[in-house]
Parts: sequence; structure tokens; C-alpha cells
Amino acid sequence: MSRYDIAIIGSGPAGLEAAITAKIRNKDIILFGSKDLSSKMLVAHEIQNYLGLPFISGADMVKAFRKHIEEMGIEVTEDKITAVYAYGDFFVLQRNNGEMVEATTVILATGVVAGKPYPGEDTFLGRGVSYCATCDAPLYKGKTVAVIGGSSHEEAEAEFLSEVCAKVYYFPLYKDEPAFKAENIEVHREKPAEIIGDMKVRTLKTDQNEYSVDCVFVLRDAQFPGQLVPGLETEGNAVKTDLQMTTNLPGLFVAGDIAGQPYQYIKSAGQGNIAALSAVNYLAKLPK
Amino acid sequence: MSRYDIAIIGSGPAGLEAAITAKIRNKDIILFGSKDLSSKMLVAHEIQNYLGLPFISGADMVKAFRKHIEEMGIEVTEDKITAVYAYGDFFVLQRNNGEMVEATTVILATGVVAGKPYPGEDTFLGRGVSYCATCDAPLYKGKTVAVIGGSSHEEAEAEFLSEVCAKVYYFPLYKDEPAFKAENIEVHREKPAEIIGDMKVRTLKTDQNEYSVDCVFVLRDAQFPGQLVPGLETEGNAVKTDLQMTTNLPGLFVAGDIAGQPYQYIKSAGQGNIAALSAVNYLAKLPK
Repeated sequence: MSRYDIAIIGSGPAGLEAAITAKIRNKDIILFGSKDLSSKMLVAHEIQNYLGLPFISGADMVKAFRKHIEEMGIEVTEDKITAVYAYGDFFVLQRNNGEMVEATTVILATGVVAGKPYPGEDTFLGRGVSYCATCDAPLYKGKTVAVIGGSSHEEAEAEFLSEVCAKVYYFPLYKDEPAFKAENIEVHREKPAEIIGDMKVRTLKTDQNEYSVDCVFVLRDAQFPGQLVPGLETEGNAVKTDLQMTTNLPGLFVAGDIAGQPYQYIKSAGQGNIAALSAVNYLAKLPK
Repeated sequence: MSRYDIAIIGSGPAGLEAAITAKIRNKDIILFGSKDLSSKMLVAHEIQNYLGLPFISGADMVKAFRKHIEEMGIEVTEDKITAVYAYGDFFVLQRNNGEMVEATTVILATGVVAGKPYPGEDTFLGRGVSYCATCDAPLYKGKTVAVIGGSSHEEAEAEFLSEVCAKVYYFPLYKDEPAFKAENIEVHREKPAEIIGDMKVRTLKTDQNEYSVDCVFVLRDAQFPGQLVPGLETEGNAVKTDLQMTTNLPGLFVAGDIAGQPYQYIKSAGQGNIAALSAVNYLAKLPK
């Protein structure tokens, strides 16, 4: 497996700026994100204070950013990263398709996740709580599972699970009505409240019912940083960092909303720049 | 004297972004800088990594930034600030023309100054070392003074001093040849080395000679932050700060190169945004 110099997770302003700066410094990079770049930015009405692009719509800002990365030959690898493992002098990233990617440094620019983990979620991680359907489906062949879907993108994951599992309870956290073909998927408009079990998960409790399940797939748009990267120090919903965007894990840097307030495009881009240069400096100091 | 909510010093990307963000938040601001915005940016060949403005010349970037502030009705007050005094719950800024301005908060975005103060410079500040000709000229009527000129802009200051003082020794730190009309100005192409005195300044020593003077006017393009703001904690040439761009002086924030490396346009703009929002938050918490 080839090892990238820098893996960048997130294609908002922080991730894009990090990619551009790393590319200029001739680093071998991979940028994970969405072809839309940022769904949040895409629907922004008007951004007034991104210096140099006055009174721009979110859609036009996405266009301007896309033009920039295209002119530099930077591609977005459209995949979600479900886990990042620190191995001392390198990192292993688990892709949503189950594949692994290695990188010497990582820049987390995944944005901020509202809310908190469900009670029981952290406790049962790896024992019936999963963030990756493709990775963990084989463990639940013929079983009953729940899927908490943060966006309609997760419906494909539920469909896939329905081919492997006996039954899938699907809990959409969004407004659009899911349209599943598989008959063994039941959609419930209930609010997940708690994950309960003993040595492993037994029950998903909602605001209305309890469901006997063997696994709860929690498929948020973005994961809480401490769940995405085991061992990463956090403070509320933000990663603990400093002016150079370093974290408690050497070689792992953060930028943008995940680094705390304010949540502003130009601030995110600025931090992406710093994170990339910190990664470049870190790489330069490694023994040959 | 009216008191501004936020005084912003510096018209590079950090100062401009701070001004834009503060203006959007309806603050009463004053922005000190140069009509050229940034002489450093103006001559930059090509900036590749300012996200959204790919492969732009420095001159075109200045144009884009100027368009942005003009569309928002922000004006640059063309004057140098020679001192900022912290009075607890407000600040007094000394302008190069000798006038004073009050502000509840200050954002320093003056860039980074290369080098170090001259030996003796800090010791004799206020006792024969001055950073403002207009302010301190009356103290040296009929006396002999030295002017260390960081750019040709300072020639007008030397001309003014020549009207008040008996003699002016002028030491240009730049290449262009100064053309003075006043006969009592002597230009010396020597490197200032040390400022010497007892209770007050007596001598300016250069790499070649010693000059008996009553005052040395050190007129750099930008001042060292600890000299500009007495009591401000610094670390090398940077001001000590954190992710929210605060300093040891409540109500005083920094952004851009003055906040340390990396020296990059997009990073400066991002920090200008943070500094402005930190100032806004500080103002919101003040007792009415």
C-alpha cells in the first residue's frame, strides 16, 4: 500500500486551502470529501466577509473554489472516512468502502457536528455500535440492525445492509421521505434516545419504542472527532489545538469548524493554510 | 473626543478582513493604513494559494480587496500610529500627525518587522529616542537630531524637523537617494549601530562614525509591537496570542504576520476575521 504524505479529510474551505497549499509544496496528497465540496456552503445565501469575493452567493463561492482546485489539478476523492488510527509515525484511514489508506500526516477538516453522542454510543463502539456499514455488515449476517441516517446519502448504506441482514430498522434524521425497495427495511420516524446492552448492544431505545437489535449503525454526516480518531483530545465538539493547528497526536492537524469557533469561511481557509504548512514542517523533520 | 468601538491598525489582508467583519457587525470602526493597502502585496509576483483567487498577481489582489472595502463603504485613514496606550477599559492611539484617537478595542495588524531594536533604543525611549517627528519635534527646537528613515516616506518628516531643529542627520535605510531642499539636513549612508547616552541620548554611533545628537528619531515602516504598545507581551518579533487572537492586554487583539508564522495572505485574513469577532464579543460583555 502506498503511503500519502498528507491525507486531508473534508472539502470545505479548510480542506481545500490545505490541499492547495500542500500541493504547492509538492506533497503527495489525497483529499477526501464531496464532489459538491460543501453542502452547507452550496445553500448559503450570501457571504459578505470573505475578503476578495465580496457579496458572493454560496453557489458562486463553490464555483470559485472548484475552479481553483481544478486549475491546480487537485481531485476530490468522494468517500467518507469512518475512522483514523494513529500508529505512531503514520496513520491508517478507514474508507466507507472498507478499504484502508495510509498517510504520514492527516489534516482533519470535517466541520463541526452538532449535538452529542447518544447515551451508550461511546460505551458500545466496536461492540454493536458501528460507523461504517460496508466495513461491519459481514459481522451481522442474518441479524437485526438499526441504522440512524443523518442524510439521504445513508439510504444506500441501509439498502446494502438489507442484503446481508435479516431486518433493518431505519431512523431518518432528515425531512425527505426515504424510498426503499427492500422489503426488510422498516422506516420509523422516531428520535433515537439511547443504546442499551450488556457485553454487546441489545436494544435501541427511541422516544417512543424499544427495538431489539444486534447493532446500531450511526451514520451521521460527520462524526464527532473523538470517535473518528480514537485518542484525540477534544474540548466539547472541538479538537484541542493551538495557533499552529497541532493536536495531541503528532502528525495530525486540524482546521476549520472542527478547531472551534468562530464558524466562518475565511477563518477556516486561513487555518487550512496553517495546518498544511505545519504538516509540511512535520514531514521535513522526519528521519529520512 | 469620540471613542471608536474598534481601531484597526494595518491595511493588509488581516486589517481589511477585520474591518469588513467588524463593519458587518455594525461596529463603529477606524482603519489606519496606507491607500496602497499593502506595499508588500502590491509588488508580489503571483499568489497561488489564496483560495478563490487562483494565480492572482499582487496588484490584482490589491484591486480585489479594495473593491471589497469600497463596496462596504470602508475607508482607509492614511496615517501611521506611533503609539498605543492601554488605559484599562479603553486605548489611546497616537497618530503621526500628533493627534490622539480613542478606541474601546484595538486590532493590531501591522505586519512583522525584520531585525531587532538598536542597542540603546529601548533604554532611551522617551529620553531621546522617538518614533514620531510631529509629536516630539517641539522638544528639540534648535537642537541636533538624527533621523533613521525606513522608507522615502520619512523624508517629509526629516524636512519638517529641519524647520524646527538646528541640524538633522538623515540615515536612509533604503536605496533611493533622498533629495532634500533644506540645507541643514546631512544625508549619511552609514549603518546605525547603537544609541548612547547617560540620563538622555548623547550619541548615535554608526558603523563608521559617532554623531552628537539630542534625539534619534527611529522612523521604521512599522514598529516592533512591544514599542508600539507599551506593556504588550511579545515572543521574538511576534505578539503572544492564542486561537482567539487575544493578548495579555484585555481588549487588544492581533492578526496576521504580527501574530507569528506562517506569513501567508489567507492566514492573515482568517486571523483578521477571528480578531474582529473576538473584539465584538469583548464589546458585548462590557458593562453598559
